[in-house]
Amino acid sequence: MAVYTEVSDEDLAAFLTQYDLGAVIACKGIAEGVENSNYLLQTERGTYILTLYEKRVAREDLPFFLALMEHLARAGLACPTPVHAKDGFALRELCGRPAAIVSFLKGLWPRRIEPRHTARLGEALAGLHVAGLSFALRRENALGLGGWQALFKACETRAHEVRPGLAQELAAELSHLEAHWPKALPEGVIHADLFPDNVFFFGDELSGIIDFYFACTDFLAYDIAICLNAWCFETDGSFNVTKARTLLANYRKRRSLSADELAALPILARGGALRFLLTRLYDWLNHPAGAFVKPKDPLEYLHKLRFHQGITRPSEYGLA
Amino acid sequence: MAVYTEVSDEDLAAFLTQYDLGAVIACKGIAEGVENSNYLLQTERGTYILTLYEKRVAREDLPFFLALMEHLARAGLACPTPVHAKDGFALRELCGRPAAIVSFLKGLWPRRIEPRHTARLGEALAGLHVAGLSFALRRENALGLGGWQALFKACETRAHEVRPGLAQELAAELSHLEAHWPKALPEGVIHADLFPDNVFFFGDELSGIIDFYFACTDFLAYDIAICLNAWCFETDGSFNVTKARTLLANYRKRRSLSADELAALPILARGGALRFLLTRLYDWLNHPAGAFVKPKDPLEYLHKLRFHQGITRPSEYGLA
Repeated sequence: MAVYTEVSDEDLAAFLTQYDLGAVIACKGIAEGVENSNYLLQTERGTYILTLYEKRVAREDLPFFLALMEHLARAGLACPTPVHAKDGFALRELCGRPAAIVSFLKGLWPRRIEPRHTARLGEALAGLHVAGLSFALRRENALGLGGWQALFKACETRAHEVRPGLAQELAAELSHLEAHWPKALPEGVIHADLFPDNVFFFGDELSGIIDFYFACTDFLAYDIAICLNAWCFETDGSFNVTKARTLLANYRKRRSLSADELAALPILARGGALRFLLTRLYDWLNHPAGAFVKPKDPLEYLHKLRFHQGITRPSEYGLA
Repeated sequence: MAVYTEVSDEDLAAFLTQYDLGAVIACKGIAEGVENSNYLLQTERGTYILTLYEKRVAREDLPFFLALMEHLARAGLACPTPVHAKDGFALRELCGRPAAIVSFLKGLWPRRIEPRHTARLGEALAGLHVAGLSFALRRENALGLGGWQALFKACETRAHEVRPGLAQELAAELSHLEAHWPKALPEGVIHADLFPDNVFFFGDELSGIIDFYFACTDFLAYDIAICLNAWCFETDGSFNVTKARTLLANYRKRRSLSADELAALPILARGGALRFLLTRLYDWLNHPAGAFVKPKDPLEYLHKLRFHQGITRPSEYGLA
């Protein structure tokens, strides 16, 4: 739950005079997203999401994120569309923070994942990747292979507080990934954080993909590997091959995977697991007492990492 | 900010089959209210608030609260109206908690109080009191004079952690209030928690009063005293007589105050200050580490209490 910056009624009214959205009818802070302050904004014209970007999002990255959403929405992806103010600009300032209004998407994120969800996810993810190929901007993945060593160093001396021997296990995995990480796979825009709470469904339809604030330029197949981690494990830690198979099969309906990409899936999945393990570990060790956001369990991703370490062939993910 | 109970998409869909509200379009946990879990619910029929009652609200009190809102809304007060399910009942169960859907009210709560706000507040408060006179149910004020001693006892040994000498000061005030509390003033339904974040304005109009979960039967003038505390002090601690005067003058347009009620205002305001001082002190001393809700500063109410201790005549509140 996240409302870090309180917006006063007066500031909001003044802010909205910059837009053609009519008067404010209501504005409620919503418990969605952990990085930014999000408000559900109702005006005379409709319902929108107002986001104030907090310090974990770099101001210089915001033009990339907003332009990407606009590009993808124009290409037909169900994602938030930035609303332009009267002067044409979508990125503005409110209460001393960068801020933007985006369109509101219907639907609910699925709490219990079923294969019908991963099927729609696969299609949408491929659609995102294909549409992203014509996007002109580039953003390095700060949380890719190059960023893991620094994250690990920041946690190394205290990792044992979470689990004895964890630092050694992470160091060994990092060495392995650095030695075996693919050098050349098809690149493009990836979402990089496509967890179930960022995907809305309305009935059986995938009605929205949100939260593009980790999006970057990286191997497209790495985005699939993140989804295998985020969508295909059961709460008991078991891997659901049916969900993985529907994800991959439906992805391939819209974008074909090369032999290299398929072969790289196990190592990419290990990397994806390590990335979330490291960021969760960092947050676990560093969250301030009394923080609004409860840190997520890093060990969930240690179990996932170990699962992927045991995979030798991509067919074990349910690929034909 | 408060979403203590997560409602799954499946549970919500099943829950809504009990109503005539059509399908769910979206449902967002909102950062409003600290006692319960609140969702902004959009269905094919419109926008509503879905509340799951958490453990600080006694289940046996819910029929009183819901019936009261319905009674007041029918009398024309801008307050949430409980939505009845197909079987006629508004109070239901969801995710193992008592739950209800109420109508959505437009408007924003004012962050910077001006006399125009306290003017509308006075009218609405009198309207609430008058409408409440025909409400049949009764609920004792658990946080009235009779409840303060127990709250004090629960904080007494640790009050010095917040301020040296605080326990002695509270004990003396409690004795004074027990000796001088009015015995017979006009009674009725009071809101008992009418802070600015519970009152919405749409332009200059007071568009909603929410959060009736402390409402009870008590001296009507005590509700005014709570509002004097909550609306008429500046952030620097000074008392704004203009706001108090507009509040009282507009209240009296709709309900006249007896000489006894006017004379009792200073002691009632002391009681109101002590009530919020004690509950804030309790929460301050007992909030769990990592709680979602940041406890409010109890000492704000110590300063208010001391102000009221210096008042000898109600005219000092700006009364003619």
